This record gives sequence, structure tokens and C-alpha cells, in this order.
Amino acid sequence: MTGTSGSDTILYHVDGELVPVDEATVSVDDRGFRYGDAAFETLRAYGGTVFEWDAHADRLDRTCETLGIDHGLDRGDLRARVDETLAANGLADAYVRLSITRGVQPGKLTPHRAVDPTVVIWVKPLPRGGVGGSDVWDGPATVQTVETRRIPNDALPAAAKTHNYLNGILARLELRGTGADEALLLDGDGHLTEGATSNLFFVDGGVLKTPATDGPVLPGITRRVVLDLAGDLGVPTAVGAYGRSAVEAADEVFLTNSTWELRPVARVDGTPVGEADGCGGPAQDPTDRVDHEVVDPGPVTGRLQSAFDRLVEECCY
Amino acid sequence: MTGTSGSDTILYHVDGELVPVDEATVSVDDRGFRYGDAAFETLRAYGGTVFEWDAHADRLDRTCETLGIDHGLDRGDLRARVDETLAANGLADAYVRLSITRGVQPGKLTPHRAVDPTVVIWVKPLPRGGVGGSDVWDGPATVQTVETRRIPNDALPAAAKTHNYLNGILARLELRGTGADEALLLDGDGHLTEGATSNLFFVDGGVLKTPATDGPVLPGITRRVVLDLAGDLGVPTAVGAYGRSAVEAADEVFLTNSTWELRPVARVDGTPVGEADGCGGPAQDPTDRVDHEVVDPGPVTGRLQSAFDRLVEECCY
Repeated sequence: MTGTSGSDTILYHVDGELVPVDEATVSVDDRGFRYGDAAFETLRAYGGTVFEWDAHADRLDRTCETLGIDHGLDRGDLRARVDETLAANGLADAYVRLSITRGVQPGKLTPHRAVDPTVVIWVKPLPRGGVGGSDVWDGPATVQTVETRRIPNDALPAAAKTHNYLNGILARLELRGTGADEALLLDGDGHLTEGATSNLFFVDGGVLKTPATDGPVLPGITRRVVLDLAGDLGVPTAVGAYGRSAVEAADEVFLTNSTWELRPVARVDGTPVGEADGCGGPAQDPTDRVDHEVVDPGPVTGRLQSAFDRLVEECCY
Repeated sequence: MTGTSGSDTILYHVDGELVPVDEATVSVDDRGFRYGDAAFETLRAYGGTVFEWDAHADRLDRTCETLGIDHGLDRGDLRARVDETLAANGLADAYVRLSITRGVQPGKLTPHRAVDPTVVIWVKPLPRGGVGGSDVWDGPATVQTVETRRIPNDALPAAAKTHNYLNGILARLELRGTGADEALLLDGDGHLTEGATSNLFFVDGGVLKTPATDGPVLPGITRRVVLDLAGDLGVPTAVGAYGRSAVEAADEVFLTNSTWELRPVARVDGTPVGEADGCGGPAQDPTDRVDHEVVDPGPVTGRLQSAFDRLVEECCY
């Protein structure tokens, strides 16, 4: 990393100022700390350009609207802070997290209408995906369904991306000792929802399927991009309510989020993906993608990964 | 307030040190901020003594166990920090909040087993209740049932008191424009659970009733104290699953938490408590309690308030 800050210390952007990590703090009276009363987005910068900025900014707006955080911040101002943080750290390919909290208010749970928000931007280097790039994950995911259920939308809307992340943390804690690295959560009715930090896709008979967002499922930006790319490629898609057996019987399974992009799943609940029927699976399938050396994605996954890489290439380099 | 700090600035206790409020901060990388990944207790000090310390410390232990926060902190050490904070601020009658976060860990959602916790203690002056004391609330509560449902225990156990408080905040946001000051949340099956920051009690035919904690209901310390006091007074109690109609038909309704102690409810969904049958209610009833001037609690509520005040008196003065 080449830092223009004159040192190797990463700078965060906190409440309007660039500060070294070890000075990047918020008040203990900030509602983001006391209650997790904050909205956030995880962003990816490729070649210095924030990928799908408008989609992330739209979702951030919706989260703030759900939480009643009328922050009065201009979208262009937020983007400028992100760009300034990337530039100050000399980062082109990076992870970016952008949070808006309801700020400091008197110690009552009921929020005041008038908000003095706290804006925090975290960055760290992250290798680019894209054609010729490398993945941020070491290999395909191993997924385990857990007992922890997704929070229903009528208790906390899944479309709101907030600092209340204990539901996903409890799910991840269940993975201890299992060897799995992503939890798959069901809703109260036993339908598949998503991973703790990822959306779920699976391929069944050539059809790309993913749980619908009318259930407790985050409307992931990468999820939407993948559905669009599938349309472009002529891959049929289905969005609906699926039980656990659907993913167990699938030919291919992958996860998406802004950091992982498309990450193939090797095992679900201990069973290799595509082998539930004893006929072998993606590991035996040819793939049109060779730059993920340690991964054997299934053919549909591979095509979508390549299309995603090309999209990043066109967008940002 | 007489402060030994030599100024009027309140001191908080953060990560082992007493610091003025405006220097009381946590890292933006603290998981308590990023994810609400923290346990807390709201405590009440009367005459310099923390009320029901053991019960609060027990519940804090259980919350940390649920979250897998193996903090290694000694209960006596935590108590010493609370006492030190009260003393440094010259506070006898006070609100105290004690939080333990999972601390700073690398930016992954999956928690590390090794924890360097952050301990934060907030204090502020709060008038004593107790015999001859005054209440912290200005009058009886006005309660409104809301659309937001309590988070089910299989998604986030209600017995865990954490920094994930958006469910209650969304409930409180629904009160805007209604004149109500506490939200009453139902579970997904339509059963009464609790308020955003309080447990619910109601009196029906002389029986004191409260929702059971096998539903998504915080096992409140004041709730348990009140049930014990009812036993001492010979007031019959029932703990179970109740629908909204039960509280609408009740003769008396009150809320409990460590700050409010027992707070009478004047109205539920716009209807005066005890008047659903058109026969008048607590406002016409005599009461054995006169030190809450602006409140006319029902007779059972009044007896329990007096018993609570005596308990505080015996315990802490």
C-alpha cells in the first residue's frame, strides 16, 4: 500500500475527519454504540471506483428511512468522503464500510427527531476480483444450517442493514467445531433465507434459484447483479420460498456478498454439493473458468463468475 | 451533585479508567459499535448501594454466556468499578449502565474465542424512589400496542440483554404522534410480551398477571422482585400467555424496570385502564399510597409500590 498519509497507518473517516485507526473512536453515548442504532453498507472499490455506488446509496437511504434517521446528509457528500478516504490511504482495490449512526442523544431509548449523525468510513486493502484478479476467499465455502432462525421482518426488517448483527453472530457461533465457515439460516417456517453475511443461490436442473426478499432476506446488491447477469446469459432464474431439501438436492450452490462476490459452496451440512444423488457433481464438471485455481465451481456458477468479473472490468478499470 | 472530580463533569468508567464524558469513547473497530456485540445491565443505586447487584450480575453472566463472550472478568472487579464510578461522581442515588463488549477483533463477523473485552460504565444522577422519595417518571404511562413484533427467542433470546436494541427503537418510533410513551409488543402469535424497556403487569379480578418468560420476554429483575413481593403480600399471581384483550379488560396495569420501578399505566390504546367495562376504574378507587401525587395507581399496584419502597429502604439506607 502506498499511503499519502506519510505512514503505514490506515486512516478512517470519522465524523467528518480523516483520523488514524488508533484515534478513530465514537462517544460511548453515541446511539450506534449503546443500541446498534445505525445503518451501514459494505462497499467494494475496484481500481479506485466504488462498485454499484448508486445501489448501495439507495439501500442506505432505505435503511435510514426504516430507522427514522433523518440525517440530512447529501449522497454526493458521502461519496466524497469515501473517495477522500481511499485517496488518503492510497487504496485502489479496497473494502469500504460506511456507517451512519443516529449520533449522541440523551439517554432515552425513544429517538429524537433532530439527528446529529455520526458518519464512519472504514477502509482496508482488498485484492481485486475481476479478470485476472484473485478472490478474497481461500477456497469454496462450507455451509452449515443452524438452529438460530432469521429475525422475522415484522420484528426487524431484513432489508434494513444495521449495526444489530447479533442474529448473524449467534449463527456463526454455532459453527464452532464444525469446520463450516458460513451459517445458513432458516426462517421460523423452515424456509431457507440466507447466510450470516451472504445471499444464497443454488442451481437446480439448470435453473438459478434464490430465496425471495419477501421473506427475511437482505436484498443484496451482488444478489441483484447476479440475477441481472443470469438474465443476460440466458440462464433461467426463479425467486421463491425453498426448504432445506432444495439446497441439499442442488447441482451447484454459491453465496454472494460485496466482499466475496460469487463464492462457490463445496459442502452443505457435510454433504458435498452435487453429490446428494450419488452421481458426482461440480468437481467432475468442466468449467470455463480457470483463474480460481483452488475452486471447481459448477458450470453455471463459473459462467456467472466470469460475467461478474467482466462487469467489474468494464465498470472500474 | 457533589463531585470529587473537582468539576461538574460526569466521569464514566471506560476500559478500566475514569474519564470525563467528552473523552469517553470506544474504537470504531470495537464489536460493540460495529455489531452491537455487547451485553449490558441497567442498574439503580440507592444511597450509594447498587440494588439487586447479584441478580444483575447473574443475568449479565447469562447474557455473556449466550453471546459466547468469555471475558474473564471477576464479578467483584466489575462491582468495584461501579462503586468507584459512583464515588468519583459523588453520586448516591443514580442510574448506572454497565456494558461488556467483545472488544476489538479483526473485521470478520465470526468472533474469536480470545476476548479483550471493553467495559463501559455510565452514571447519572437519578432521584431515589423509596419511602418519601420521588418517582423518575412525571406521571403514569400511556401505552400503545404496536405493529412491530418482539424478536422470537430462536432468533435472539430475549433473556440476553444486549446492545441490539433496534426492535425496541422501531416500536418506540411507532408511538410518534400518538401521545403514548411506551410501546407494547406482541409476539408473532399475538401474545403480549413486554414494553420496549419494561415488563408488563396487570391485575385481573385481584390476580396479578404477567407474561411468562418462556415467550420473548426479558426476565426483568424488578419483575422478579415484584412477583416475590406479591407473594409476601398474599396477592395471587399468574404467569402465562395472554392476548391483548386481557390487558384491555384489566382493572390495573403497570410497567416495571430498574429505572421506573413500578410505573402505573393510565391508558392502553387510548382507553383508560379499568374503564373498558364502563364501570370506572382506579381513578375512583381509594389508595393506600399518597406520595405519588400525580398518580392514582390501583389498589394492588399501590400496595406493591409501597412494598417495593420499603424493600429499597431496608436494603440501601
